[in-house]
Amino acid sequence: MTTVGVGMVGHAFMGRAHSQAWRSVGPFFDPPLTPVMTALAGRDAARTGAAARALGWASAETDWKELLRRDDVQLVDVCTPGDSHAEIAVAALDAGKHVLCEKPLANTVAEAETMVAAAERARARGIRSMVGFNYRRVPAVTLARRLVAEGRIGTVRQVRAQYLQDWLTDPASPHTWRLDRDRAGSGALGDIGAHIIDTAQFVTGQLLTGVTALTETFTHERPLPGGGTAPVTVDDAALFLGRTDGGAIATFEATRVAAGRKNALRIEVSGSAGALSFDLESLNELWFHDATEDAATAGFRRIVVTEDAHPYAGRWWPPGHMLGYEHTFTHQMADLLTAIAEGTDPSPSFADGLRVQRVLAAVERSAAEGGGWSTVEGNV
Amino acid sequence: MTTVGVGMVGHAFMGRAHSQAWRSVGPFFDPPLTPVMTALAGRDAARTGAAARALGWASAETDWKELLRRDDVQLVDVCTPGDSHAEIAVAALDAGKHVLCEKPLANTVAEAETMVAAAERARARGIRSMVGFNYRRVPAVTLARRLVAEGRIGTVRQVRAQYLQDWLTDPASPHTWRLDRDRAGSGALGDIGAHIIDTAQFVTGQLLTGVTALTETFTHERPLPGGGTAPVTVDDAALFLGRTDGGAIATFEATRVAAGRKNALRIEVSGSAGALSFDLESLNELWFHDATEDAATAGFRRIVVTEDAHPYAGRWWPPGHMLGYEHTFTHQMADLLTAIAEGTDPSPSFADGLRVQRVLAAVERSAAEGGGWSTVEGNV
Amino acid sequence: MTTVGVGMVGHAFMGRAHSQAWRSVGPFFDPPLTPVMTALAGRDAARTGAAARALGWASAETDWKELLRRDDVQLVDVCTPGDSHAEIAVAALDAGKHVLCEKPLANTVAEAETMVAAAERARARGIRSMVGFNYRRVPAVTLARRLVAEGRIGTVRQVRAQYLQDWLTDPASPHTWRLDRDRAGSGALGDIGAHIIDTAQFVTGQLLTGVTALTETFTHERPLPGGGTAPVTVDDAALFLGRTDGGAIATFEATRVAAGRKNALRIEVSGSAGALSFDLESLNELWFHDATEDAATAGFRRIVVTEDAHPYAGRWWPPGHMLGYEHTFTHQMADLLTAIAEGTDPSPSFADGLRVQRVLAAVERSAAEGGGWSTVEGNV
Amino acid sequence: MTTVGVGMVGHAFMGRAHSQAWRSVGPFFDPPLTPVMTALAGRDAARTGAAARALGWASAETDWKELLRRDDVQLVDVCTPGDSHAEIAVAALDAGKHVLCEKPLANTVAEAETMVAAAERARARGIRSMVGFNYRRVPAVTLARRLVAEGRIGTVRQVRAQYLQDWLTDPASPHTWRLDRDRAGSGALGDIGAHIIDTAQFVTGQLLTGVTALTETFTHERPLPGGGTAPVTVDDAALFLGRTDGGAIATFEATRVAAGRKNALRIEVSGSAGALSFDLESLNELWFHDATEDAATAGFRRIVVTEDAHPYAGRWWPPGHMLGYEHTFTHQMADLLTAIAEGTDPSPSFADGLRVQRVLAAVERSAAEGGGWSTVEGNV
Repeated sequence: MTTVGVGMVGHAFMGRAHSQAWRSVGPFFDPPLTPVMTALAGRDAARTGAAARALGWASAETDWKELLRRDDVQLVDVCTPGDSHAEIAVAALDAGKHVLCEKPLANTVAEAETMVAAAERARARGIRSMVGFNYRRVPAVTLARRLVAEGRIGTVRQVRAQYLQDWLTDPASPHTWRLDRDRAGSGALGDIGAHIIDTAQFVTGQLLTGVTALTETFTHERPLPGGGTAPVTVDDAALFLGRTDGGAIATFEATRVAAGRKNALRIEVSGSAGALSFDLESLNELWFHDATEDAATAGFRRIVVTEDAHPYAGRWWPPGHMLGYEHTFTHQMADLLTAIAEGTDPSPSFADGLRVQRVLAAVERSAAEGGGWSTVEGNV
Repeated sequence: MTTVGVGMVGHAFMGRAHSQAWRSVGPFFDPPLTPVMTALAGRDAARTGAAARALGWASAETDWKELLRRDDVQLVDVCTPGDSHAEIAVAALDAGKHVLCEKPLANTVAEAETMVAAAERARARGIRSMVGFNYRRVPAVTLARRLVAEGRIGTVRQVRAQYLQDWLTDPASPHTWRLDRDRAGSGALGDIGAHIIDTAQFVTGQLLTGVTALTETFTHERPLPGGGTAPVTVDDAALFLGRTDGGAIATFEATRVAAGRKNALRIEVSGSAGALSFDLESLNELWFHDATEDAATAGFRRIVVTEDAHPYAGRWWPPGHMLGYEHTFTHQMADLLTAIAEGTDPSPSFADGLRVQRVLAAVERSAAEGGGWSTVEGNV
Repeated sequence: MTTVGVGMVGHAFMGRAHSQAWRSVGPFFDPPLTPVMTALAGRDAARTGAAARALGWASAETDWKELLRRDDVQLVDVCTPGDSHAEIAVAALDAGKHVLCEKPLANTVAEAETMVAAAERARARGIRSMVGFNYRRVPAVTLARRLVAEGRIGTVRQVRAQYLQDWLTDPASPHTWRLDRDRAGSGALGDIGAHIIDTAQFVTGQLLTGVTALTETFTHERPLPGGGTAPVTVDDAALFLGRTDGGAIATFEATRVAAGRKNALRIEVSGSAGALSFDLESLNELWFHDATEDAATAGFRRIVVTEDAHPYAGRWWPPGHMLGYEHTFTHQMADLLTAIAEGTDPSPSFADGLRVQRVLAAVERSAAEGGGWSTVEGNV
Repeated sequence: MTTVGVGMVGHAFMGRAHSQAWRSVGPFFDPPLTPVMTALAGRDAARTGAAARALGWASAETDWKELLRRDDVQLVDVCTPGDSHAEIAVAALDAGKHVLCEKPLANTVAEAETMVAAAERARARGIRSMVGFNYRRVPAVTLARRLVAEGRIGTVRQVRAQYLQDWLTDPASPHTWRLDRDRAGSGALGDIGAHIIDTAQFVTGQLLTGVTALTETFTHERPLPGGGTAPVTVDDAALFLGRTDGGAIATFEATRVAAGRKNALRIEVSGSAGALSFDLESLNELWFHDATEDAATAGFRRIVVTEDAHPYAGRWWPPGHMLGYEHTFTHQMADLLTAIAEGTDPSPSFADGLRVQRVLAAVERSAAEGGGWSTVEGNV
């Protein structure tokens, strides 16, 4: 087998991003398995058909279960809201399809646990699964992980992580499914907080073991596109402090009301011998401070992460030619295809997704209890 | 009376900074009262005499109580470690001397309360008191306060405050009185955390009403300059989340182990109509985002705060000529002298200092209790 | 006709970039004409065939002239070194094919003039031509042009333009065709200097009328990949000053030996009422200063150019999701396809390319004469 | 002798800056000679007397020649406009007074030459002279010079120097003596261009040997404060390219109409093994790129130049406490006093001032001739 048929569920923002990555991975990464964009599943026949044509899928289905029945689909790519992840992913794995599932893995720990169990069952049969924390594959973030692992910043002591957006600053900004707890699970916390939890755990190689948290909703009702209003049942902002299994302490902030900050996923890791700093709004840069340098010339270095020596970058353009948001998905597809071809486990695994989900649950628990310490079950 | 005799206690880092300010305030601010650098008090006769000569004080005393007895001293400037603030300041006020007291106001809430009481007694007799939160008078910080008060960022929703230093990153860095709880009260928390608490309360015009906190000490013993080691009995880093009486939420981090960050007092305030951002390492800049601007041209503006239109700046140099750390003290002296001359209350008051002290106490309480919610007594 | 068959010549760096753009323009821009990646032409059969497969071209040719004979090719995309542009482009236009030609338009003014003549002949028959100054379509650059045109910075007075790279800093860096005057025309000047000349003329809407210049080569011989060395017959760096037909003055620097600068195409335009500043290393940002703002809050604004209100950005991702280098080519293809479909002239035209070529020639003339003033023929 | 009596001529902007430095040098630098602020000379008795009191001078004179006659004055500090520098400095030196003269050294090469001759005559008698290029003593600039001299960036190849201000952007901005060729010599060129010429020559250790230049005046008449208008007879902006005696090439821009740039003296030096970059608007930072570092972690480092290991910084505050514009003058006074005490030649010398003056003359010559190459007499 040198190709893998892909069936994707969902064709909104994530579906568009994944489609571009499936299109691009071949020309730039020459993976051992060539993906074939076989089928797109959505609920509405007309809209799904149009999306399939626009995004380059060979066929369209109005029931995602059809993908599981098709022999020409070997990999299911789940790009739906979080409330349907568990059902689709478990069914796909049990049907013998490899699964790539968007983040957060699920809306609850219980769902995530069933997914991990399904992934383990499937793994025994050589079926692979991966959760889509795409920011692990920003070259600067992958490089940060590498530098920490190589000991370049010594022992990790502190993490400061923020994910700042501002699209809900204006109270007149319309309601969406992302503001409905039943669909989205939580607000800023699950949507973008999940990203910084995973990024922090990935870069440091440590797991959060406990948190104290506070969440807030500033606007409680928002206009519906068609008129009228709907209640906002999720958080606008979630703040929490944490401790890791490696002895580090951490601050986290996820917010959608940070006026003027568009997509500022920021993480700084301070160690006993140096520090690293990253901001997704400047995604081609990693800042590195080597505390062992001579004091006269020490300072944070702005590494432009586009060299052949950097993760992924050499597959694209000559040094200095910037990558963007979408390239993280292409990197993800490249690594997933390689893992499937080589019979290894892709990363991040569903278990990694569960480890994030458990932190989200601990945050919600602490916030509900007014900030008491909340242990992250399973990470301790 | 057109002059005021100043007696200063202490001649270490703060004493040097205050001396420069007392020397500079006349030429640049032409205050209604001219300060006379009358006497410097210290414990060691030789060292105090040498310091007096070096720093420009007309005489030296080895007992600060002598300052209270001298008729040529009308203002006592307290630049000693926090454990002696209460005794000196209360005695000076009761002796009818105006008092400028370095921050933090005291090492405990109880001490701070006695100081506030003394300040109130003295005030009834026309005696003024001020606590030295000098960063309120970085022109960019004063401008930030003005813009918030004018409503330029709308309703304040979030504060993110950090004070990052790195001088304790290296475990071999020597012990000092600042690492001894008996002298310093606390570690990063009281030393630099106090600054960001005051700055946040000043810029937003809101008080913290409760916190949840976590503190950590990474190095538990450090070498003494003369040989041997001493235990570190204070925190290296203090993290906390808070709520304000105006409905805002906040994150705070004070640390002395943030490798590569030298003096990064950073505060960002997000409101319903804009945001402000400041970093003490770039102290001549304030970043302002006006969310009511057209989306095509909106963005954080880098305001170089050296214009005549900006607080304090016009008294120094033409626009674009940068100020530094020390100028904040000169601004403080100018405003204090004006308040004394005009018979008004200088700001920040001892009561403002107590408001910070109460937050520090709540943070320590929460940290000791593993992160439970801790109400800030008196601010609610 | 709803599709257009594209035949591309060349499959190195530019060929890869254009291929990605031809693949991406449909899904994101839904252009009125759908491009079909019909044929790729190269010199070596095996390498061209492999490239065609890798990059997504339906067939391969070893003689670019075959493209002109094929009925299924209506557009020829010229991605070869500059010395072959004139021959290919003129032949393609005369054969009735639309032409997109990479920059610089040609290696000499004379060649460029024949190309403009061919473009005019073709235009009379409804055949379109465009030169590939892709940086005009960085959203931030397009926005800069719009703001200048709207008068937001008043009368343009000064331009400071730099294109700083560092890949030739090391004398041991190998020889390439780009260092051979016969193939490349010139060095940093024609390769990256051409970009800043075009960008400056585009953003300001003004043409350079004269220059004074200086060029330098620091390393005169470089190793060949296969062993031995070859002489460097082009400039490492080119500096020039200029005047425009709108009364502005300008500085230009193009260099490949600016250690640590990877791809720093920087342009700042100062006007009587404001200024704009851009750096390709931060390509999602435009800095805008409005000098008519109140002095207390004026300052350069960092505009994150990813909003729906910004050029091109809304076709990709939600606000705050960064674009990269390659997207400029997709924008170029979208506008070219629209122009062909609508029967309008795409921009930049071959005449625009000639206007750049004339400046390059004037720079070389001035540099050869030791810095004397050199009028830009045809732009005056 | 352990003190030196200082007599200063002029009490405008520079006089105020120098006064603050004379006041501050003792407490912070403990120089081997203590300066005594003996006398201030100005033209108007009332204004000079008031200035003397405000700035801390013990007496006032209305004729600078009186300073030369006073035995209690051993050092004359010349802070007047450039047209009087030669007369005062030559007379003072010939009268046996040490001289500190503000920059530019003079308004013409001829004047500067008479000053150098006087300095050499005086030197034979142990009398010292210095020209006030204060920016050499921004700690970051001094550090840059040191790193170049240590070979940390290899062979210097390129300099890009800018001095951008914006106070003449508005055509309604009033006339001053600085816009009058008879008083000021030239405009942006002599005022701020002189600074970047000196800084470039200082940091690189190389002299400019020839230039090609272009100057422009955008506003030809400006309002007088008292009503009416006066002609502007100097340049608003001066641009030039140059070559150095070390084989480097350089770009220079001095302008007072760069909207939004307040005091942006920027210099970047690119060498064969690294690069340095500085901006006076961020004067506590030096950016250093070491091209010999591993490609994976190389990048420009932001050095916060406030460490004990850095020039001057350790005399002020603990690391991370920022210095400002005025501190450069204090450093200058400290070094001058040390040189006088030790009987060595302070730097920059009048000869260094002449070397700048010769470049200014060459720039004016080239600009007048429409950009032809102009050799810098005496530097070749």
